[in-house]
Amino acid sequence: MAGLPTLAVVGATGAVGTVLCELLTGRRNVWGEIRLLASERSAGRKVRCRGEELTVQALTEEALDGVDVAMFDVPDEVAAHWAPIAVRRGAVVVDNSGAFRMDPHVPLVVPEINPEQLRDRPRGIVANGNCTTLAMIIAVAPLHREYGLRELVLASYQAVSGAGQAGADTLHDQLIKVAGDRALGSRAGDVRQAVGDDLGPFPAPLALNVVPWTGLLADEGWSSEEMKLRDESRKILGLPDLKVSATCVRVPVVTGHSVAVHAVFATEIDTDGAREVLRNAPGVIVVDDPAAGEFPMPIDAVGTDPSWVGRIRRALDDPRALDFFVTGDNLRKGAALNTAQIAELLAKDLTHP
Amino acid sequence: MAGLPTLAVVGATGAVGTVLCELLTGRRNVWGEIRLLASERSAGRKVRCRGEELTVQALTEEALDGVDVAMFDVPDEVAAHWAPIAVRRGAVVVDNSGAFRMDPHVPLVVPEINPEQLRDRPRGIVANGNCTTLAMIIAVAPLHREYGLRELVLASYQAVSGAGQAGADTLHDQLIKVAGDRALGSRAGDVRQAVGDDLGPFPAPLALNVVPWTGLLADEGWSSEEMKLRDESRKILGLPDLKVSATCVRVPVVTGHSVAVHAVFATEIDTDGAREVLRNAPGVIVVDDPAAGEFPMPIDAVGTDPSWVGRIRRALDDPRALDFFVTGDNLRKGAALNTAQIAELLAKDLTHP
Repeated sequence: MAGLPTLAVVGATGAVGTVLCELLTGRRNVWGEIRLLASERSAGRKVRCRGEELTVQALTEEALDGVDVAMFDVPDEVAAHWAPIAVRRGAVVVDNSGAFRMDPHVPLVVPEINPEQLRDRPRGIVANGNCTTLAMIIAVAPLHREYGLRELVLASYQAVSGAGQAGADTLHDQLIKVAGDRALGSRAGDVRQAVGDDLGPFPAPLALNVVPWTGLLADEGWSSEEMKLRDESRKILGLPDLKVSATCVRVPVVTGHSVAVHAVFATEIDTDGAREVLRNAPGVIVVDDPAAGEFPMPIDAVGTDPSWVGRIRRALDDPRALDFFVTGDNLRKGAALNTAQIAELLAKDLTHP
Repeated sequence: MAGLPTLAVVGATGAVGTVLCELLTGRRNVWGEIRLLASERSAGRKVRCRGEELTVQALTEEALDGVDVAMFDVPDEVAAHWAPIAVRRGAVVVDNSGAFRMDPHVPLVVPEINPEQLRDRPRGIVANGNCTTLAMIIAVAPLHREYGLRELVLASYQAVSGAGQAGADTLHDQLIKVAGDRALGSRAGDVRQAVGDDLGPFPAPLALNVVPWTGLLADEGWSSEEMKLRDESRKILGLPDLKVSATCVRVPVVTGHSVAVHAVFATEIDTDGAREVLRNAPGVIVVDDPAAGEFPMPIDAVGTDPSWVGRIRRALDDPRALDFFVTGDNLRKGAALNTAQIAELLAKDLTHP
């Protein structure tokens, strides 16, 4: 293999795939051929990527021939089936689904935190974290290195595009139905009636509501998303006994996941020291001047790369605990950006001069 | 004084006052005359209350004559000025502002939790809790009695009507501006541009956003609302050393405050036992079957009296900790209902056969 490696984007026409193509246009180019793959249904579509107009191809075994790195942004079951096929055809897979994240033979990598784990990938697959985990962990990891993390209590404010393009479409549809009726939101059931039966991928209306449920039912009343926050935080930080309690809530925001974080450490912290750690952390931007109206919010963080961190303050009743609020673009750092960063690190190893 | 006591509603035309008049219509009648008072500007308005058409009068010293119980739903500074005047004129004041809540000579009463504290009111004033505290404490108190509360970690999802009618109007105005533009919410600043400069009582747009800031700047980066949750929980529960960390966030919901609660107790708990405690708790309704789409949400809880509690589950990594989600109508139990309940307890003592 000579020159620059070949990249395949599998799931190129989804919400995350679309952002991936945008990102590939803006980032430093490390790729030779870029091949866009998707379901039969999307084959033939033209997509602009890196200044070229590319034709989306159907995902087949042959379409994976000659691919060095394959980014997967497809549902869990599609990834579970196709990622091993891509590996057998010679590609390294960077998978954004939940199919492989907790596999002990698959590294779960955040380039700012544990890039060294990329080296050991016995299954040929590297996993990308869940979008809510990524937004939060990028701020938690540098604090852990400084103070020694013991416990996380998390509450999320998750955007509808975390459920894909259908999620975003659903909220926009519902907004049209509720806008203009100034009496709505004041009687039990009035929003349900206005929205009607089309709830899209959600168990309840999102317009004028918050829904304390994302993902599937896991054990003992926990949701799969809440379990991911616990399991993935432990794996990324290398803390198998980390105490984690998370409550995951969907909110009527298009893109931008936020998390209220209460982090307990092994040692005493001070707010200024913690703020300095976060200021120097890669992938983090500190936005923390409430008196001036500056705190992290989805409408500002959407479309940007870093995790926005603010409301940084030591707990009043525990000198070892820090409270803060973080917002990240769930389609970028929460998905496409982290995937691209991992793939670029792999590309460096695969590029032969 | 013979017969039923006279009630004054001070601030009768505001968001909470309006709900108070509705409540007085539906609840068992314990009042003689009901007098509606408000600012000069609202005087002369006709308001239906308890089946009668009443004319709103301007708040003056004379208008308070003969009043036995005065419910105050006005800004802090108005309450601070007028409540002592009403007391001097012979009324017991039930105040919903923040002016007196932390005064050691003013009881802070939630009838389901500490009604006995009503008896000792040296200033003649009884305080009503903050709306976010009330939604949450009604579920926390019975668990405390059973298990002994040690710590609360809270994240709120607060409705815009917590900032009064202006808050609700602002969100409705913004929804009209953002509805129908399906591209909105995907670029930094696009929602700000669509919403324009009219932010109403908020520091940022609420449509398609969450704002991690409510209230004013208190000490060390904490907001006044977050301090209220800590101070009022301690006072209502009689736990001056209770550890509390709260993050207060405004969300695009018209009415219905929600709180993600992580509560740590002195003794081990089990989920079923905790659920049973909550099922038997006054003012609480348990809505907890995620597989069937049943969890507490503002669109269902709005307009109802109880606090809706669900997502009840023991922490996976701490057998002494319980996680749950609670939603309550911030204008009812969070304000008007609790005020009415307190006033009715007072009315019982004041009624002479």
